Amino acid sequence: MLPRLTQASAPLTREVTVVNEHGQTETVSIPAERPLTIYVDRREVVTLMTLGAMPELLVLGYLRNQRLIRQPSDVLSIMVDWEVNAAAVETRDGITDIDARTAQRVVTTGCGQGSVFGGLMQELDQIQLPADARISQSSLYGLLNAIRLQETTYKSAGSVHGCALFRGADMLRFVEDVGRHNAIDTLAGWMWMQPESEQRGDDKIFYTTGRLTSEMIMKSAQMGVPIVVSRSGMTQMGYELARDLDLCAIGRAVNRRFVCYTGAHRLILQPELAAARNVDAANAAG
Amino acid sequence: MLPRLTQASAPLTREVTVVNEHGQTETVSIPAERPLTIYVDRREVVTLMTLGAMPELLVLGYLRNQRLIRQPSDVLSIMVDWEVNAAAVETRDGITDIDARTAQRVVTTGCGQGSVFGGLMQELDQIQLPADARISQSSLYGLLNAIRLQETTYKSAGSVHGCALFRGADMLRFVEDVGRHNAIDTLAGWMWMQPESEQRGDDKIFYTTGRLTSEMIMKSAQMGVPIVVSRSGMTQMGYELARDLDLCAIGRAVNRRFVCYTGAHRLILQPELAAARNVDAANAAG
Repeated sequence: MLPRLTQASAPLTREVTVVNEHGQTETVSIPAERPLTIYVDRREVVTLMTLGAMPELLVLGYLRNQRLIRQPSDVLSIMVDWEVNAAAVETRDGITDIDARTAQRVVTTGCGQGSVFGGLMQELDQIQLPADARISQSSLYGLLNAIRLQETTYKSAGSVHGCALFRGADMLRFVEDVGRHNAIDTLAGWMWMQPESEQRGDDKIFYTTGRLTSEMIMKSAQMGVPIVVSRSGMTQMGYELARDLDLCAIGRAVNRRFVCYTGAHRLILQPELAAARNVDAANAAG
Repeated sequence: MLPRLTQASAPLTREVTVVNEHGQTETVSIPAERPLTIYVDRREVVTLMTLGAMPELLVLGYLRNQRLIRQPSDVLSIMVDWEVNAAAVETRDGITDIDARTAQRVVTTGCGQGSVFGGLMQELDQIQLPADARISQSSLYGLLNAIRLQETTYKSAGSVHGCALFRGADMLRFVEDVGRHNAIDTLAGWMWMQPESEQRGDDKIFYTTGRLTSEMIMKSAQMGVPIVVSRSGMTQMGYELARDLDLCAIGRAVNRRFVCYTGAHRLILQPELAAARNVDAANAAG
């Protein structure tokens, strides 16, 4: 039984009037950003600031990634109401020991001080990513091209992070949010709403526009996704965690360029594809 | 009496071996990232993930921006020891009601889910930014040029956010961290370590490489700094907050371009300076 979800939507951008360097007034778009307070069985858990694209999936994924629920069927329904900026979650059996489990706080990197409820790091050593997961350089390039072509709030309004789940070069789901934690949590929620046979992560690739910090690596590993790709770079704790998990972390990935930081044995190199582009570029220039 | 601080330092980058798109092995730098657990009078408060450039100022600014301490003299000493990744804070009189004040959590945007202890938003309506603070377009361009010339961990290793405090076009302090909250908190700590006559924010300008989210605006306002400049854009809650505070928020500021989102009356426009650059560019191109 999958949870019942509302489909609350709200405008993703807003136009504001600004003054530019020529002293002229112009109109630009900025991303929407709204508080969403999560109530689990009428108990307030947390307030997230979100773009609001897929709030129900965000809530489901948040509860999943915080390890507050163990499986989708633990949740009966998620009702989002933007009139009151609230998400009401109804669970099947409640969340055992919710006070204790939301009390311990680790403030993490993100773009600052993201919080992860306690106990999460301890579970990492139980994670075993599939030994045989691979990505070919050709699939990687297909993935990067799909990202390049994606219509985004970022292109129209800036100031949001994008995340996506891929199977090979096929984009399964793309999501943006003002916070990249929210974006990946939304993907985690989306995965849980798929048929059970497709919920696993081992055949998937996680893409993020944001940096590969320890929390991004941690969340990807929790979701069972063994390969992570980012346009940005990597922090030290992200690096160490990815290495220890044998997760393939590819960063600085734009067009045909990338570096594979960890888990390089999962990357099927096809360097001739990188070279081919240089020929294209030379032809174009010539 | 200013707090006594250690000067714990640690390497800011680390070299790792990666595989690039040509299948070649190369060495790249990544920013360091280490946990720092803050103990106030031997009581554990929080663990921050930080680059570690100026950990004592980070701790001081964190306690300040979380409103856990009211003035620098409340703190006797901050001792950071990287052997145990701990910052021991000794206060003059303890922190009243510390349990209650660190219990309420609002998860904010940042690049995700930064946490702000409760009660902070309520204090915003007590903030009155100085009515006469101004920035000229010429100073803004000087500021942006200083940022451009700054030697940074970002240039060598990527994946960090930079922040700076300016007086006009004079850079007073520049700091980077893996999280932009940490970076601004470090500036807040730095301000408190200055002679009392120079601690005020009304003559200062805050620069950040990160987006202008509500927390960035909030923290700047708390520090009494009425003008904020960013290379990036602005989110809706940042916009609304800056507008309500009459704070001058300038974004998308690179080279000679920018947009002033709010508080435009604080910006002394000199559009001829923007035009001048076009002439330069045309000359260079010609």
